[in-house]
Amino acid sequence: MNWRREFRTGLVRPTAGLAPGRTQANLIAVPRGWAWDMLLYAQRNPKPCPVLDVCETPTTELAPGADLRTDLPLYRVWRDGQLLAEVGDATSAWRDDLVAFLIGCSFTFEAALLAAGIEIRHVTQDRNVPMYRTGRQCRPAGRLHGELVVSMRPIPAGRVADAIRISGRFPAVHGAPVHVGDPAGLGISDLSEPDFGDPVDIRPGELPVFWACGVTPQAAIMASAVPYAITHAPGHMFVTDIPDSRYEV
Amino acid sequence: MNWRREFRTGLVRPTAGLAPGRTQANLIAVPRGWAWDMLLYAQRNPKPCPVLDVCETPTTELAPGADLRTDLPLYRVWRDGQLLAEVGDATSAWRDDLVAFLIGCSFTFEAALLAAGIEIRHVTQDRNVPMYRTGRQCRPAGRLHGELVVSMRPIPAGRVADAIRISGRFPAVHGAPVHVGDPAGLGISDLSEPDFGDPVDIRPGELPVFWACGVTPQAAIMASAVPYAITHAPGHMFVTDIPDSRYEV
Repeated sequence: MNWRREFRTGLVRPTAGLAPGRTQANLIAVPRGWAWDMLLYAQRNPKPCPVLDVCETPTTELAPGADLRTDLPLYRVWRDGQLLAEVGDATSAWRDDLVAFLIGCSFTFEAALLAAGIEIRHVTQDRNVPMYRTGRQCRPAGRLHGELVVSMRPIPAGRVADAIRISGRFPAVHGAPVHVGDPAGLGISDLSEPDFGDPVDIRPGELPVFWACGVTPQAAIMASAVPYAITHAPGHMFVTDIPDSRYEV
Repeated sequence: MNWRREFRTGLVRPTAGLAPGRTQANLIAVPRGWAWDMLLYAQRNPKPCPVLDVCETPTTELAPGADLRTDLPLYRVWRDGQLLAEVGDATSAWRDDLVAFLIGCSFTFEAALLAAGIEIRHVTQDRNVPMYRTGRQCRPAGRLHGELVVSMRPIPAGRVADAIRISGRFPAVHGAPVHVGDPAGLGISDLSEPDFGDPVDIRPGELPVFWACGVTPQAAIMASAVPYAITHAPGHMFVTDIPDSRYEV
């Protein structure tokens, strides 16, 4: 399936579980005057913001021929830190002065977890991954500040070590978890009400495991009132041509 | 031993083998107008240029209290891509508009190699690590371009796999090698004449193994005729307070 073409021609759906083996990416595009701050913010917060490519035009070497304005399933357009609209095609919202950042996505290590026999609940339940804003602040950069956003996967207690070990080998796509167990430790009060994505079932004997999430730059857009930005909608990623193995160490 | 204080008060020597367990870093400081290009160059070439910190003043969170203008053993000052001087104190050469990048250094994984019983020849021989310019071009960024620079360690054939596996777990400090064996494959004609550092002995049964090197940005300074820059002198690194384990995945 050529997912980018599907999305370009109108399909809207979350991308978890699609195009197995091919790296997916978060999108964040900001005006050039904010690009230094964003690149510095990413460098200072490499777990939530691992940069896979920086694009001064809406093209990327991670997917020759792709158009970043049309080839994602769903976009968010932001003004002054406020969500202006969600659109399936960002062509008319794009500006020539935008610099686009493609940020690694945890879906990359999900394939490795599945291969190790670790169930990914939101894939099983055919939902978007649950994501939460935390009480933990990222290291600021210039005018950018904001909290860490995490994704959560319930993992059986006996597989937590495997999940950490395996995801840890993919530092370019968030790497090892930032927190295991009690969500209160991250300032999350209710796992059944994620800030982005859908809730998933947590079964007896499972612990919630939290990974840094590529939606973190969107939290910075909001907290810092960036004058203009275009991002992917959470869970609706850019599908690249790069095999996941590129990012395994 | 407080090495930064030693260097601040005049000691000049390569830092390989010093302060075991503490991360060392390459320094490259460029005028603010070149900082975006440099950060982008680093992002696009993460093996030679893994960024550990970006400093808009001559201080770093990697070593509270340190002064980047004085606390390295030896600096190089560059004008229009030409080496202007080597100095032990860069205070008078520093400019307020410089942005300093601290780049990971392979000395970090050397400790892990030594712990695994793999000899590091330049440490045994008490020399600076041999470094070579290669025929391989880095991915350009803005006005910056240049060739990949590598460091070389001779490794017994039976330990090459271990050396790769172990160093690969440190992607933030160059990670796994870029080349094993015949130097001609990198466009290097004579291992006994390194472009930077000192030659080391290669014994029967050993292969030369090549890692991406943090001197690569200096090659870009030269190739791109950057108007002004201050860097460390090859092998004369900045000693941070960060334990090497921070960078192990």
